[in-house]
Parts: sequence; C-alpha cells; structure tokens
Amino acid sequence: GEGKAKAERMFSLMDGFLKNDPISLQKDILDHVEYTVARSRFSFDDFEAYQAVSHSVRDRLIERWHDTHAYFKRKDPKRLYFFSLEFLMGRSLSNSVINLGVRDQYADALNQLGFEFEVLAEQEGDAAQGNGGLARLSACQMDSLATMDFPAWGYGLRYQYGLFRQVILDGFQHEQPDYWLNFGNPWEIERIHVSYAVKFYGTVEEQDLNGGKRKVWVPGEMVEAVAYDNPIPGYGTRNTINLRLWAAKPSDLYDMESYGTGDYINAVINRQKAETISSVLYPDDRSYQGKELRLKQQYFFVSASVQDIIRRFKDSLNDFNQFPEKVALQLNDTHPSLAIPEVMRVLVDEEFLSWKQAWDIVCKIFSCTTHTVVPEGLEKIPVDLLGSVLPRHLQIIFDINFSFMEELKKHFGLDFNRLSQMSIVEEGAVKSIRMANLSIVCCHTVNGVSRVHLDILKTKVFKDFYELWPQKFHYKTNGVTQRRWLVVSNPGLCGLISKWLGTDAWIRDMDLLMGLRDHAGDAELQQEWKMVRRINKIRLAEFIDAMTGMMVSPDAMFDVQIKRIHEYKRQLLNILGIIYRYDCIKNMKESDRRKVVPRVCIIGGKAAPGYDMAKKIIKLCHAVGETINNDSDIDDLLKLVFIPDFNVSVAELVIPGSDLSQHISTAGHEASGTGSMKFLMNGCLLLATADGATIEIIEEIGEDNMFLFGAKVHEVPKLREKAENHRVALQFARVLRMVRDGYFGYEDYFKSLCDSIEGGGDFYLLGNDFASYLEAQAAADKAFVDQERWTKMSILSTAGSGRFSSDKTVGEYAHQTWGIEPCRCPF
Amino acid sequence: GEGKAKAERMFSLMDGFLKNDPISLQKDILDHVEYTVARSRFSFDDFEAYQAVSHSVRDRLIERWHDTHAYFKRKDPKRLYFFSLEFLMGRSLSNSVINLGVRDQYADALNQLGFEFEVLAEQEGDAAQGNGGLARLSACQMDSLATMDFPAWGYGLRYQYGLFRQVILDGFQHEQPDYWLNFGNPWEIERIHVSYAVKFYGTVEEQDLNGGKRKVWVPGEMVEAVAYDNPIPGYGTRNTINLRLWAAKPSDLYDMESYGTGDYINAVINRQKAETISSVLYPDDRSYQGKELRLKQQYFFVSASVQDIIRRFKDSLNDFNQFPEKVALQLNDTHPSLAIPEVMRVLVDEEFLSWKQAWDIVCKIFSCTTHTVVPEGLEKIPVDLLGSVLPRHLQIIFDINFSFMEELKKHFGLDFNRLSQMSIVEEGAVKSIRMANLSIVCCHTVNGVSRVHLDILKTKVFKDFYELWPQKFHYKTNGVTQRRWLVVSNPGLCGLISKWLGTDAWIRDMDLLMGLRDHAGDAELQQEWKMVRRINKIRLAEFIDAMTGMMVSPDAMFDVQIKRIHEYKRQLLNILGIIYRYDCIKNMKESDRRKVVPRVCIIGGKAAPGYDMAKKIIKLCHAVGETINNDSDIDDLLKLVFIPDFNVSVAELVIPGSDLSQHISTAGHEASGTGSMKFLMNGCLLLATADGATIEIIEEIGEDNMFLFGAKVHEVPKLREKAENHRVALQFARVLRMVRDGYFGYEDYFKSLCDSIEGGGDFYLLGNDFASYLEAQAAADKAFVDQERWTKMSILSTAGSGRFSSDKTVGEYAHQTWGIEPCRCPF
Ligand SMILES: Cc1ncc(COP(=O)(O)O)c(C=O)c1O
Ligand SMILES: Cc1ncc(COP(=O)(O)O)c(C=O)c1O
Repeated sequence: GEGKAKAERMFSLMDGFLKNDPISLQKDILDHVEYTVARSRFSFDDFEAYQAVSHSVRDRLIERWHDTHAYFKRKDPKRLYFFSLEFLMGRSLSNSVINLGVRDQYADALNQLGFEFEVLAEQEGDAAQGNGGLARLSACQMDSLATMDFPAWGYGLRYQYGLFRQVILDGFQHEQPDYWLNFGNPWEIERIHVSYAVKFYGTVEEQDLNGGKRKVWVPGEMVEAVAYDNPIPGYGTRNTINLRLWAAKPSDLYDMESYGTGDYINAVINRQKAETISSVLYPDDRSYQGKELRLKQQYFFVSASVQDIIRRFKDSLNDFNQFPEKVALQLNDTHPSLAIPEVMRVLVDEEFLSWKQAWDIVCKIFSCTTHTVVPEGLEKIPVDLLGSVLPRHLQIIFDINFSFMEELKKHFGLDFNRLSQMSIVEEGAVKSIRMANLSIVCCHTVNGVSRVHLDILKTKVFKDFYELWPQKFHYKTNGVTQRRWLVVSNPGLCGLISKWLGTDAWIRDMDLLMGLRDHAGDAELQQEWKMVRRINKIRLAEFIDAMTGMMVSPDAMFDVQIKRIHEYKRQLLNILGIIYRYDCIKNMKESDRRKVVPRVCIIGGKAAPGYDMAKKIIKLCHAVGETINNDSDIDDLLKLVFIPDFNVSVAELVIPGSDLSQHISTAGHEASGTGSMKFLMNGCLLLATADGATIEIIEEIGEDNMFLFGAKVHEVPKLREKAENHRVALQFARVLRMVRDGYFGYEDYFKSLCDSIEGGGDFYLLGNDFASYLEAQAAADKAFVDQERWTKMSILSTAGSGRFSSDKTVGEYAHQTWGIEPCRCPF
Repeated sequence: GEGKAKAERMFSLMDGFLKNDPISLQKDILDHVEYTVARSRFSFDDFEAYQAVSHSVRDRLIERWHDTHAYFKRKDPKRLYFFSLEFLMGRSLSNSVINLGVRDQYADALNQLGFEFEVLAEQEGDAAQGNGGLARLSACQMDSLATMDFPAWGYGLRYQYGLFRQVILDGFQHEQPDYWLNFGNPWEIERIHVSYAVKFYGTVEEQDLNGGKRKVWVPGEMVEAVAYDNPIPGYGTRNTINLRLWAAKPSDLYDMESYGTGDYINAVINRQKAETISSVLYPDDRSYQGKELRLKQQYFFVSASVQDIIRRFKDSLNDFNQFPEKVALQLNDTHPSLAIPEVMRVLVDEEFLSWKQAWDIVCKIFSCTTHTVVPEGLEKIPVDLLGSVLPRHLQIIFDINFSFMEELKKHFGLDFNRLSQMSIVEEGAVKSIRMANLSIVCCHTVNGVSRVHLDILKTKVFKDFYELWPQKFHYKTNGVTQRRWLVVSNPGLCGLISKWLGTDAWIRDMDLLMGLRDHAGDAELQQEWKMVRRINKIRLAEFIDAMTGMMVSPDAMFDVQIKRIHEYKRQLLNILGIIYRYDCIKNMKESDRRKVVPRVCIIGGKAAPGYDMAKKIIKLCHAVGETINNDSDIDDLLKLVFIPDFNVSVAELVIPGSDLSQHISTAGHEASGTGSMKFLMNGCLLLATADGATIEIIEEIGEDNMFLFGAKVHEVPKLREKAENHRVALQFARVLRMVRDGYFGYEDYFKSLCDSIEGGGDFYLLGNDFASYLEAQAAADKAFVDQERWTKMSILSTAGSGRFSSDKTVGEYAHQTWGIEPCRCPF
C-alpha cells in the first residue's frame, strides 16, 4: 500500500552507482579499512590496504554483476555454461580495476593516501585453482566471454587448497599446501542460500509410475554444495559475468539420530568430512585415473551445476523441448563429462521425460573440447568404482552404450575389433568407462585446440570416431586474453602499442595489432620498444635477486622456459643444451669468450608430486646451476636460474622481461600450448619445435622471425620406429656423460634420468633433436648480437599475435559450436 | 614528509562516527544489502535484511571496539582475562542495538523501509557455544564487565558446531549438529593476522643454558590458533570490550615434504584435520573425563590465550615482576586450568625465569571459580594421556605437586591419608591429575557461586584444603544481566518499571528496583503489571502453537521448568506431579473440576547425548503429554507442553510469559542456579527447594512470596543414610505404578527410570519430597486464584531481584579477587 510506495521511493532515491572520483574512492577505502578489515584508519599496513582496496573494487564489481544478471534474466537469451574442473585465475585486483576502467583513479586516490597501487597489488596471493594450460585457458576464456558480452556462466569447484606451493630445499621440490583462503578472498561472494544437495552411493530401486516403471536412486550419502560466485568483469563493457564455484559442506537434511556422547562427537566430525570433497586440487595435469575422491569431485560439481541450470531454466520455462534453445553446455576436457549421464538422469528420473526425449535434448546441448594428444592420456573410471559411487549413472552409461553399439553394428556390421575399441565400456582386467568415448557419443561437437591437434585426433586418437562422424570434429585454436597478458602485465608495452597504433581499440580487437608491422622498421619505435623491454628486464632481474639472491645483468639475453615440468616438454633438452654451452665456454680461449653472447637461462615450473622423472629434472637444473653459477671462469657469460613456485603472477612478471622463450615439446605432444602466445604478444622471440599452436604462429609471423628446430609431427613416428640412435650427436653423448660421471654430483640419483634418453629408450627424441636444437640456439645468439634485427623480430612477433587472442577463440566457439549471441547490458 | 602530512590531514578529515539518523541508517543498511549480502537493494527478504542490519550494527560496534582498545592501550591498566571454555551468547542484534542506545533509531529506519525490527531480530540464530548455566554466566559477566567499564578480555574457543540442536521425533530426543556458522556470523571479526602456533605431543629434551640446564619441548604436532573477535558493547558507556575466541587451522610452518601424488592428497587432508580441535562443543554439562580431544581443546585455547596475553604485556613492559600488576587471570571452572602449568612453562622455559620467580608470579595472577558440588564431578586427566599430549606440562605439574607435598608434610606431618587426598596426582588403577587440586594450589582465590555452595566446599568438597588455606575460599553469588533478561527480552515490563521508578537508571544499577516495593500494592501498577504479563503470555502461547501446534489459553497458569535435563534437577518430580494432578482431575466430580486452576505445564531442556536417564525423562514427558493433552475429560484444565531445542532465545521468550517457575533440585546439588534469577526479575513466582542461590533469594523477597518445599541441605545426607522409604507418600507409589503399568505406554523403556527412584535407590529423594512438593503446588494454585495477591507477589519478586544482577557479582570479583579498576573510554 502506501507504506510500500513510500519505501520504494526511498530505495530508488538511495540508488546510484558508486563514484570513482578520488575523494569517494578514498572514503570507500578507509571505510573498508575500518569496518571490513577492522583496522584503525590511522594505522594499517600494505596488506590491509590491499584488502580494503579490494573490497572497494568488489563493491563496484557487485554493482555490475547484479545489473548484468538482472539484464540476462530479463532478456533470457541462450546461455553458455562452461564446465571446468580447473580455473587458474591468478590475481584479480589489477585485472579488475583495468577492466572496470578505474585503474588510474585508484592509483591517484591511493597516492594521496601515501600508498602505491602497484605495491598493494603485489600483496595479493594467486588463486591457483588449476594446474596449467587447461586451467589458465578457462580463465582467459572467461575474460573474453565477459568482454564480448556473451551470456555465459563458468562452473567449477572451489578448492580449499589450490595447486601446491613449490618449495625448493637443497634443489629438491617439496610440496606445501596452498593456504590461499587463509587471508580471506574478497573476490568471491559466498552465496549461502544457493546450495544443493548432492547424492552419492546407495542403490537404485524400481517404483511404479503411471503404469510404467521408474528408477529411484536411494543415496547412501548426501553432501551440500554451496555456491561461491566470482564476478568476472568484461573490458570496455558493463557486463560482469559469473564464475560459480561449489564448496562442499555437510548436509543438514540427513540422518538425525540419537547418540551416545562419544558417538555424537564422532558423528559430527565424520559429517564434517564431507568438506573433504572440495579440499584439494589434484596436482597432476595429465592423468587422474580411478581415484574415488577425484570421481566425487567431478560428480559433485557437475551435479550442483546441473541442478542450478535446471532451476534457472524452470524459473522462466517449463517445456524441456525448449531446453536446447536456452542452454549450451561446454565440457572442458572429459573431467566434467558425468554431466551427460547426470542430465539424462534428471530428465528421465526426476522430470519424467522418456528416454528418447531426454536423449534428443542431451545430444543438442553438449559440446566438448579435448586437450589430449595420446590415447594413454584419456580418462577412465573403473566400473566397480563408478557403480559404487554413482550406481544410477552407471546404468545410464550402460544404456547409452547399448544403443550406441546397436547403431555401430548397423553402420559397420559385426566388426568386433572396432566395436570394442569404440565402446564406452572397456573390457579387460579392470573393466572401465572411457570418458572420452562417452563424450564423443553424446556431444554434437568435439573440438581440438589447434589445427595440428585436430589432425592428430582424426588420424590417431579418435580415428574410428572420425570415420563414423566426421562432421563432429573441429578445432578452435586456443588463445589468451590480451587484457591480462599485455595490459595488466606489461603496461609499458601496452602504452607504446596504443601510441603507435593511435588507438587502444586493440584491447578489444587484437587484429589491429597487425598495424604495428608498418612501423617495425621505424628506428624511433625500435628505440622505444627496446627501452620498455629493458625496464621489464630490470624488473625481472630484481625479482630474480629477491627470489634467489642471484644478480643477473640485463645486458644478457634472458632465455626462459616456464611451464609444468614434463618429459615431453623437454626441460631436460634445455638443461643439456646449457651444459653444452657451459662446456664450450669452459674450453674456449679467453679471446673467444669475449664473443660469447651472455645468457641468463631461466627455468621454472612445478612437477606433479608423484612424477619422479620431472622431480629429477628439477634437481638436475639446480645441480647444474650450482656448478655454473659458482664457476668463476664463466662469470656473467652464463647463468642458470630456477624460479621457484611458478604460477600466474610469476608468469606475468617473467614474460614481459624475456628475450627468448622455449617451447620445445617433442612434435605431436603439445595439443596447443598457450604459454608461447603470451611470450609472442609481449615481443619475446620463440625458440620452438613445430608443434601445437606454434605451427599456426609460424604462419602469422613467418619462420624468419623465430628459431625453429627439430623433428616434425609426421617424422616422429618413423624416428621412433627406427630408434635411430646412430644419428645422435656426439655432443649429446658428451654432456650426458658429464651428468653420469657426477660432474654435477648426485650421479646415482640422475642415472635413471640419463637412462631414459639413452640406449634406445629416448621416446621424446632428445638425442635426435639435440644437434638442431643447438643450431637454433646458435642462430638466436647470432640474431641477438644485431639488436636492430632482434627488435624488429620482436615487434613483428607482437604484431602477429592478434590471432591468438582468446577473444577470437571464444568468438568461434560462440558462433560455430554454442550458438549464442552477445547480450550487452546497457550503461 | 609533506606527503605524509597531507595524507594525515586527509585521514582525519574523513574520520567521524557513523551517524544514527534514519537516513544514514537506511543508506548503511541498503549498502550492506547490495555490497555485503550481495543482493539487489530492490529485492531482499527478511533474513537478508537481518544480515544487512547486523552488518551496519557491526560497523558501529567496531568503531567503539577500536576506540576502547586504543584507550586501554594508552592507559595500560591491570586487565582481567576471563578464561572459559564456554560462552552461551545467544543472539546479538537486539542486545547490541540496545547497549549502543540506537534501538529506536533502527526501528524507525526499518519501518520506513517496510521492515519490522522485531521480525528481523527473530531471523538470527543462537550462538550456542556452551551448555548451560556455566556458559551463560560467562556471557552475562562479559556484559557486566563491559557496562561497568572494566578493562577485561574474554578468551575461549570458537566451535564450528555449538551445542547440538535438539530434535524430537516420536517423543525421543535426537541430536543434530548446530550449523550456526553456515549463514555467516556478522558478530565476529576474523583476525587472520592474530594467530599463534600451539604445540602438542612430542618429547622434552634438555639443553645447556648459561651453565644450567634448560628444558625444551620438541612438539610432535603444531596447530595454528586464529583469533575471532566478538565485540561486547557496554550499556550506557562507549566501552566495547573483546571476547576473543580461537579457531584451529592447519599450521603452515611445519613439515614441508616431497610427496607422491596419493600421499600429497592425503597429507593435505590429514593436515586439515587440525581443524577438528575446534569443531565440536562437548555436549555434557557436568563431566568430560579423560577424552583426548577435550584435553586438546582445553590446551589449545589456553596456549593461544597465554601467548596473546604475554605478547600484549611485552608490548609495553619487559620486567615480568610487573606481570601481576598488569594481569589477573580468571579460570571459569577447572576447564582452563592448564593455563597454570602453561604460564609456568612459558616463564621458565621460554622467558628463562627461575622456577621460584615464575611460581611467585603464577601465585599472584590466578583465581578460579568452581561450579561443582560433588567430588565425583571434579575433572581428572589420566597421567598417560597428559604425558602423551603435553609431556612438558606433566613434568611441571609433578614439580608443582612435589613442592606442595613437601609443604603439606611440614604442615600436617606424615598424614598419608590426607596427603594422598590433597595430592594433585591421584594414584589408583588409572593414575590421574586432579585439575581442581591443581587450581586450588596455584590460585590465590577459589570462589564458590553462592553462599551455601561455599559451605559445601568448606565442609565437604574441599574440606582438607579449607583447613590448610581458609583465606583462599570465598563466594560471589552468581548473577544475570538485566540488559538481556529484562531490557531486551521484556520491553513491556522494562518500560513499566522505568515509568514507576521515574528513571531507567536501574538498567545500570539494579538496587534501584527496590523502589518498586513502595508501589507493590498500588492497584494501578498492578493493573498495568498484569496487562504486560498477559501480553507476554499471549506471545508465549503463540510460540507454543507455532512449535507444537497446541493451543493453550493465557488464562491458565503457565508453570515452567526450562533447564538442562538432569536427575538432580528433578524434572521427573515435576512430571510425576503432573501425573498426580491429571489423576486427581480424572477422578473428580464435574463440580469439583470447575474449581481446578487450569494449568499449562511447560518443560524444556536438552539431555546430554550419552545421558540415558535424562533421555528417558524427555520421552516420559512426551508420553504423559500425549495422554493428557488428548484426554477430552481434561480439556483445558491441564496441558503438558515440551518445548524442543531450549536455548537462550527460547528462554528470552518463555521467561517473561511464565507465571510460575520450578527450581526443584535436590537440596545441595545446585551450586547456584541462574535460571531462577531470570524468572525472578521478570516477576515470575518461584516454586523451589532451598538450594543454591534460592536460599539468598528467600532472604531478598521472603518466604511468603514464593513456594518453598522439600528437604533442606543439611537434612539430605541423613535422609539418604536412613534410606527412609517408609516416608514416601502413597500418591508417589500410585503415580509410579501408572507409569510402570504402561498407562502412558513404553513400560519396558521406563522401567529403569522407575527403578531409579524406588526400592531404596532414590538418591535424589523424589519420594521423600513428593508430598511437600504437592503441597507447594497446591499453595501456588491457591495464590493464583487471588490475582491481586499474585500480582503483588510478582511485583515484589522483581523488586527483590536487584541483588542478582551480574553487575553485582562482577563488582565483587573486581574488587575482592581481581584487583582491577574501571577504565572508561571518553566519548
Ligand atoms: C601458471 C601457468 N601454468 C601453465 C601455463 C601454460 O603454459 P604452456 O602452454 O607453456 O605449457 C601458463 C601460461 O602462461 C601459466 O600461466
Ligand atoms: C539456555 C540456558 N541454559 C541453561 C540456563 C541455566 O538455567 P538453570 O540455572 O535454571 O539451570 C539458562 C539460564 O537462563 C539458559 O538460558
């Protein structure tokens, strides 16, 4: 009535956006110091200032996030739901203020309070809810989806502990839990009321339903999934989309009992164990076969997300035939593929659709992206495990497989070999479910992550499926977001680019970078370009000093390889090359030494805790560094630095300061690689094999502007077959001998590492590629001496990086795979 | 330099207290809706409004809390540290706005937004970090300490799950975990940076130190204690003190390792188990012997608190001889008594004081309050357990005991019987540490909680110690805070009192209530008094309807017994009395029935999960209620209601609406009882035994104004010796027979209950007191018929309740035991 009208008047009177002038920002920041951080506004340190600033930014994010979702709700467009078990977000403060367009205002406001924005931004810890490429890709794509105004949601898990912290003790990797939430996380909004019960275990019973039969899953355990929303602001738009991560909490719906005292305490503690589901991120980036906890993590996040999506759909519509018009569901690799039987289960068992209806819907909504290159990397779940944890899902998968097998028989006849290879169920010692096969059968589109990756899928990994359904297979080359990887992390270069292009429109349209090509030879640009890069190198040198106590000269070439440690990524090849270089310098005459291009070799990356070889590579790197860095003969000509605890923030600092970066996987093993793109954008030259997305990079910038080497994808199988060890270079044998002979100590420990690449077992072809690797390195040295040429190559690298913006990738996905349109919230 | 000066000008420019006019409050509330609760300011429900309002109140609390602590820091007075394992705070919103003096402003502001303050306040869940009397006492005393401007700190544990929720299914109690934090807790401030490592297990080693020997505890486990601060606002003062509760988190200082993958996951999950320490409140209110987790809880909070206190002391001083001038350390029962060996350990092992110096300090700072009446209730810790969990503390306790034994021998000679009784170490099948003896030996003062309690301590429980150190033993009668128990929970009566006293000064000075005596006979006051009480009864009747679906008439006498269920508290006596009443009515002529005073008997309370007899009493109450309430013969003449999940908020609602309340413990078993005081203040008449504080209540209001019955404290032992079952009333046998014969069903289940009070085993003397109990009940009926007399008794009850304000208790403690002075923060 009247009261209500009055109240409404009042509400709207009080509405209005938060202001971004310095005084308003200062007031907001100080209020957060006092009331949120609960410190005195007269005394707070940098970290507390960071917290207060972040909370004031959060307020601004929340405004837009509300408006965006109110607008989506009103327009009700088809939405994309992006399911990923990992999102590697890194820090949020700088990224947020830049995307909100208030970075300078904040810097000014803080300045007047006696704080420096950059210093506060450094206080933030990384959100490391993922392992590597796959997870960082999800994060980049979220940024692009927001910027391009797509009505998209991210769904994932909120791990209490993200990827372990790498601590190096005596050259060995040790793993520390990542206590990232200990100091609070202003970037998430706890949504206590958005929660769903997730079921596990139990049995499936049959009930009568309208004459027919109905399956009812009677669970043995229930866990509550509580939503934590992470607003993702777009750049140059008001749109701020949502990344919803689920945390496990004990369910209060379930089993009330009468206990004895001891039992009561134990019962409560036991129930709290439910939280274990979202405790820890699995630290392996390539395989997680058959662990119960991992399976529960997957289903937990999938079930909560599907419930959330269906709830949202039903808020506005109730005819499930319209579901595919409103929902596109993207699976990032096979980790979330339980979503397929889950949607089937909900539609059939809970919404009472017929199997046929449900199946038609499922086939229209799902698409997936695979990141695998070798069949051994594909995820499998033992049938026994799945049957115990998710009994109803196992039935549904069997039913899906039954129909699929029938279809196959019609198509290929009784080719049992083919049937058994394509079956979702793998027979054998341990009967298992092949998650990739399940995904391919149910998704309308299966995407690879680079052109060569699609070739590999077609001809090797999913050959049979490609023959059956060629139209399902596509690729979208991965990309990275220039907002984080240039604008946030390299403001110097960013300003320079905008100056020379006469616009900063490239921040939303990366193709514009091509315009730099016209100026690549311009001496003035080159001069400025070199200056900016030098400042970045100095910053990196200071970081190295702070982390390792080692002083390195910015005059040297900074040669960087940062990424997860893997045999296929061949950090070992890099280290052997460094030993070779060291050995050469040692044996040089004084006069020749003067001609050597000084190098700082930088390696960083984490090894999965259970990955022995990778851990040995880390130790070798330290052992070699110990010898080289303390050898007074060598002095500044060569340094080897291992940067511990590589993560997104470290990448943001290292990449802009690198001259040369290495992407040297054995051809055919890197599905795409995105690290290379970040270096490319920042004008760092690549030393690389023709693998993954590098092949496409070559097309953009030309072979002349990078240092290519090594066997090609199609040569690899033959090289392996022939086991052509006779072709191994003499130098290779020599450096390996140094390791074996204990030149760097620990010869027993390194023996298996040496054995793995000698004597016919060199699966990743280090021996084969060594000579050509050294040639490429020599070419890089030569190019570096000619700084004018080098700088031009650098400019052309940046200029050619436009194709590798995740905006492009996401645009293609939206258009070709998801069928969604932008939905731009008005200002 | 200049920048700093400029910045400071700006800070102070922006300083200023939050404003409490309606528009400012509305703006703050709506901002919290949008930015803290993250809802749209145009659409939020009552719960979200409650959250937003609470956050705006929290902001105001934080202001004062800051100022208070800055002021304490500047003045550096002697501080009281109140250690308690339990604080039963209940809700905070109403209490906070009343103590801050902004209740009406909030009510107005909300009104204009279309919300009702009372409705929002109902949204709050109870903070139930304690069991019963002892824990609620801590909460009341915190309120008094704040109001009286004492420089005091509370220290305790922050349980993830407070006291279980009682759910009644089919008349049986079931226990549900108390998920009180699930919806956030605006009343606490997480102080991530205030954290200490707490050690457990391991070994004690000897090291050389300046020629002498030094003990070093090498722990086997470390857990981090993180502070959660709960501001406690005083009434009529700016002072807002701090209740600091500790939560357990895994320590990141400790054991970094290199793991395999599976091990890594398990290692992280294992480490997270550290949080278990602060997971669950033990649900027993009288004994917790020898559980490892309980011991860890005790030491965990004690160690963190002692570290915090010593850190604070060292911030301003560094001579530990001054420690007793700055620190008074109060132990609430023996649960925190590990603080004694802990302070010894820190002073000797870490601050390198001599044993003698340390001991002198310890003897000056500690005081304790005991709540026990029977020796069996005293806490013991098996030596093996203590030696394993806290090896160094066990040594220290042995050393303390050795000196004590030497002293005793000097005093009493070789009286081995006495020595073994007084020893801190109990020999026997399980060698144990007697925590009470430890406390008495080390505390300068041991307080009982009522006069009769002190008598019992002197003559029974601590007889030997009293003979040795008579000067150590004192009592302070417990009290309750009138702010919560009258002002917050009974605003009607509160207004009436102020009106008739012509002042509300009684809110800080309860003695003024005596002024009501002058008006007790005034017909106008009586009329108004009755009106207020009737409105409270109607509210209670509505609550009963909502909770149980039962309609009760506010014309009936509301006869209430709410408290923990215990044999000694004799809820069973109450139920048997109800059966008797039922049986009488059943057998009455119609005409007699018309003379019966209609009663609504209300019982509420939780039974410890392992306390079988108590659980049977709950079931019996339901079974009897089932019969009576559905007996159409009885109609409105008698109803029996069990109110489930009794807690502080329920008490706040029930007490003001009660006519008669029962406090009927077997004499000598209730150390004080505080429930009775709350009823007394609210003008509810007492039906009681002469036990605990009731004895002092009698002195204040006179026997005539209450209904006393039963054996006296000094008679009880004799009655037990004689096992005088012949004196048991016939009616007693008759009602018991009804239960035994299955009149209320479940005869097998109730058999042991009946056996426990019949056939010589009637330890709590129900049979003995039954007749006199019935007489007292009859007297109450008679009084109730004369409403004028009843109302006068009611007014005189309130008028006589001034002595039972916790302000009085705390004032006595401050003066006589702690030696602290008020320290009032200026406005
Ligand atoms: C922390 C982190 N890990 C892994 C990657 C992926 O690197 P690559 O594609 O070189 O393996 C990136 C990309 O920059 C990253 O930032
Ligand atoms: C929730 C609760 N439990 C226990 C008690 C203590 O009651 P009594 O002293 O009657 O045992 C109180 C006091 O009101 C209370 O509020």
